[in-house]
Amino acid sequence: MAAPELEHLIKLLSKLPTLGPRSARRAVLSLLAQKEKQFVPLVDAMKQVLDTVQTCPVCGNLDTSSPCTICQDLNRQKTQICVVRDVADLWAIERSGVYRGYYHVLGGLLSALDGIGPDELQIEPLFQKATHQPDTEIIMALPATVEGQTTAHYLLDRLENLPCTVSTLSRGVPVGGELDYLDDGTLQMAFKARRKI
Amino acid sequence: MAAPELEHLIKLLSKLPTLGPRSARRAVLSLLAQKEKQFVPLVDAMKQVLDTVQTCPVCGNLDTSSPCTICQDLNRQKTQICVVRDVADLWAIERSGVYRGYYHVLGGLLSALDGIGPDELQIEPLFQKATHQPDTEIIMALPATVEGQTTAHYLLDRLENLPCTVSTLSRGVPVGGELDYLDDGTLQMAFKARRKI
Repeated sequence: MAAPELEHLIKLLSKLPTLGPRSARRAVLSLLAQKEKQFVPLVDAMKQVLDTVQTCPVCGNLDTSSPCTICQDLNRQKTQICVVRDVADLWAIERSGVYRGYYHVLGGLLSALDGIGPDELQIEPLFQKATHQPDTEIIMALPATVEGQTTAHYLLDRLENLPCTVSTLSRGVPVGGELDYLDDGTLQMAFKARRKI
Repeated sequence: MAAPELEHLIKLLSKLPTLGPRSARRAVLSLLAQKEKQFVPLVDAMKQVLDTVQTCPVCGNLDTSSPCTICQDLNRQKTQICVVRDVADLWAIERSGVYRGYYHVLGGLLSALDGIGPDELQIEPLFQKATHQPDTEIIMALPATVEGQTTAHYLLDRLENLPCTVSTLSRGVPVGGELDYLDDGTLQMAFKARRKI
């Protein structure tokens, strides 16, 4: 219906997560309605990110500097490496401000269904870090899903004979969580892992 | 948390309709994960649209040619002008394929609350078309909202003495509509506008 250039842009935009054809159309119309204020700055920002942002060769984070700002930060806890699925999870932990060590991004989770084995993930570099930096605590901050737990178990097995300790995030009732609305799995886990107060 | 370039892009993206900070973050990470396949083509498509798409001076549609493809199409019904709120509504009517006349995009609706009066909309050009092209049917395809109906009434008042006929889309039960789920206003309108079969 619209010009091929417009249809092409709408099609590309609608492939982004959380966007569909209708919201992509609305986004394009909104951009065209404010060319100077919205469209030009967005295209400039995209070009800038495309040209400057790269994957950190040490941890897998995305940043303009290489190694990334976190890996270059000497004030962080040298003996902690937090293992995360992807950069989104790394950013979530950084936003919370609870952790001041380094990271290791796996780039996904083991999944037999999706055909993702250890070779598809950044697993070997983690073993190398654990080998060459003795007494490191490796903190598994992986999702509490089947894939997340499979991956954690696999890593735990392989890390057992290396000179490091391995820990994992606690499971239980989330803050503000109503017991009545919790799933059985979480309740069961919270009971099992209960502690004296 | 992330590089300033990334934060800037996420902030700009999250201003688009239907996107928020979380979905903007996911979109940026998805783009960076597929730079060559997704990111580069998207930036190219955006630049292309930014450089070539403009508002049609005749009807207000967005297109790469000026006047737009619809206004240049001599096979359309010359005596019909469909008045729509914005380009999204124009595209919706074109997608349906039910209408083969020309358009007039108002660029919004009269709204006392938002301070939008007749001068903020493309209303004068419509009167000029109605004056200079006698026997034109002006079809109001405006939303069935308070603002839409206010705008339609205002236009009807002003078009009364011009050499044109004015019509409006019918109101009633939508196709597939369960009476039990319809609002009272629609039911009332459907009863009022009932017709012999």
